[in-house]
Amino acid sequence: MQNFTLSMPTKIFFGKSQLDVLGEQIKKHSGSKVLICYGSNRIKEDGLLDTIINLLNESNITYSELSGIQPNPRITSVREGIKIGRDNDVDFILAVGGGSIIDCAKTIAAGFFYDGDPWDFFTDKAKVKDTLPVAAILTLAATGSEMNGNAVITNMETVSKKALRTSRITPVFSILDPEHTFTVPKYHTAAGTADIMSHVFEQYFSTSEDIYLQTKLCEAILKTAIKYGPIAMNEPENYEARANLLFAGTLALNDLISFGLDGDWSVHIIEHAVSAISDLTHGTGLAILTPPWMKHVLDENNAEKFYNLAVNVFNITPGDDKLEIAEKGIDELQKFFTSLEIPAKLSEVGIKEEQLDEIAKIAVPSEPIGSFKELNYNDVLEILKTTF
Amino acid sequence: MQNFTLSMPTKIFFGKSQLDVLGEQIKKHSGSKVLICYGSNRIKEDGLLDTIINLLNESNITYSELSGIQPNPRITSVREGIKIGRDNDVDFILAVGGGSIIDCAKTIAAGFFYDGDPWDFFTDKAKVKDTLPVAAILTLAATGSEMNGNAVITNMETVSKKALRTSRITPVFSILDPEHTFTVPKYHTAAGTADIMSHVFEQYFSTSEDIYLQTKLCEAILKTAIKYGPIAMNEPENYEARANLLFAGTLALNDLISFGLDGDWSVHIIEHAVSAISDLTHGTGLAILTPPWMKHVLDENNAEKFYNLAVNVFNITPGDDKLEIAEKGIDELQKFFTSLEIPAKLSEVGIKEEQLDEIAKIAVPSEPIGSFKELNYNDVLEILKTTF
Repeated sequence: MQNFTLSMPTKIFFGKSQLDVLGEQIKKHSGSKVLICYGSNRIKEDGLLDTIINLLNESNITYSELSGIQPNPRITSVREGIKIGRDNDVDFILAVGGGSIIDCAKTIAAGFFYDGDPWDFFTDKAKVKDTLPVAAILTLAATGSEMNGNAVITNMETVSKKALRTSRITPVFSILDPEHTFTVPKYHTAAGTADIMSHVFEQYFSTSEDIYLQTKLCEAILKTAIKYGPIAMNEPENYEARANLLFAGTLALNDLISFGLDGDWSVHIIEHAVSAISDLTHGTGLAILTPPWMKHVLDENNAEKFYNLAVNVFNITPGDDKLEIAEKGIDELQKFFTSLEIPAKLSEVGIKEEQLDEIAKIAVPSEPIGSFKELNYNDVLEILKTTF
Repeated sequence: MQNFTLSMPTKIFFGKSQLDVLGEQIKKHSGSKVLICYGSNRIKEDGLLDTIINLLNESNITYSELSGIQPNPRITSVREGIKIGRDNDVDFILAVGGGSIIDCAKTIAAGFFYDGDPWDFFTDKAKVKDTLPVAAILTLAATGSEMNGNAVITNMETVSKKALRTSRITPVFSILDPEHTFTVPKYHTAAGTADIMSHVFEQYFSTSEDIYLQTKLCEAILKTAIKYGPIAMNEPENYEARANLLFAGTLALNDLISFGLDGDWSVHIIEHAVSAISDLTHGTGLAILTPPWMKHVLDENNAEKFYNLAVNVFNITPGDDKLEIAEKGIDELQKFFTSLEIPAKLSEVGIKEEQLDEIAKIAVPSEPIGSFKELNYNDVLEILKTTF
């Protein structure tokens, strides 16, 4: 087990009616003028936005709004948010939505006091220093962004999707009410489930040694996603399913299962390249790419990890032929994603064959990616061709 | 799943040589005059105390000492610590040891600014208000106290052992170096393993609904304790085993597996009564009492939980007769504790038969205890007689 520092500053208010703490919590962090960041019409239609605005009014907190933030949030939205925030002299950023909204809000918080362009944070041209406090009202089980210091932003001009990691943008609090996820459509519930599972896989497939405990925690989260993803899709107002998925999503990427190990993150890097050029839903891209990545990297030396996944998570009968059982596990994962009605091929989601080369180049601009097994341009192109 | 608030303010520095952060972290919390709290000679003999003192000297931090804190820490030690702390005008409390030391240090921190007797906190006569910051250097995998707001203290005059729970005494940071547990003797490694497992059982056996994720996390920690407890006993300097046990101990009682549910805690209440009159090692008492508690409360209505424990943790072959398999699981747990060389009977650890009645009365002074299944005085006496 590697050395680590565990620091979890985000306070999570989980459960029914937890929105009631909103005003008091914003004030606790000296907020009085809030920038509300959101995307879709869903939170307008289901009344959540009105409820939030009423709560702010009751607490004498003023607000301005940045709406229309898209999935794979754009740096242009970040710029717009910073401008609205400055024009209205806001002192607190509130994200209402899933990972895209929260990531955009965090980057606005990071860029608010910075004189240059916020894309500089993603090109290592600038480091995040002073930030505004940011909080999240989560409406989709998937991201983990509600309890970590990560933000992923897309720049359409440079056709790139990059990640920022700094504890300075970790939310001060997040509100997780499973009922706020009742209106998530079937397709996005499936993609969110795949996203949660992919976050776990990126940490499960680690070459770090002596991480039995973390491995078992990973399997606990995977089993939860596999059990409740389909239930939430078919019974959108099943509180048990939505609650277990929501908490699983947080634990999959709030560092809990990353303490003491190095993750791989190849599939995320490749998916970021895919969605940078296609605007594909992140979780869908991850589900398409994960089984082919697994088949590509599986070999006799690392079969044990895949074998454990097959036996412990997919209940494949143990046996002597580790490779065979490992492959059965990967097939089961593919079947599971198919059962969630997620497309299995990039060709089914609008990617053209001639784009594969460009995707591989974006994913591997120079140095190989991944740590569980290093992948170069040719490896990534091969994986992409398999998924086509 | 019940509503919950997740708040984890303790920063954990985990791994080799993490002690190096000590001076900087104490200063970060405005400490300059520290009260070091410790118990046994072990930390003197293995050089840890000298190392700590050197680090404090290098950081120009002065210190005074409270030594000789016993297992089942006494309120008299707390009073002594408060006096030494006040005489030396300390501004920071540093625990070096296992749960007993940390609990004593936390209570000193709580009582430092209180004019009355610190036992008042345990009898609800007073509430904890202002406290000194407290930190822990953990030297035993067991307690969880390094990352929670609990303290358990024994009062020999009133023959009682009581718990205090307040976030005000949660450590500001804790240092967990698995190498600091290399010198833990075999007997205490076994008792610590049982302690970790008991903490998990108290939360696993919950009547709260819709807690699949938490249940799976519990099983992950149990499997880790079962795998590494025996290895750590037989190979005391096995870093992998010590590291996994140490982190498992923290996760077993840092609230992670308690979010969203009510725990039972009957076995802890009964054990506190046993060790209040006998000074038995806490983990040993828990190991003796847990299987008989399980057999006493198991019935057709709750057999599913015990069945899951048997199948998922003790690898018993699944089957139709839930009760039979549940009982096999309990037998496996008993065998595991026996394999750790932990006594199976209270009579083997110096308890006299005529004391059983007194223990039951201390454990159940009036209202029934437990929530998974309520236990009255007669239930507890029956459990105690089974263990005799």
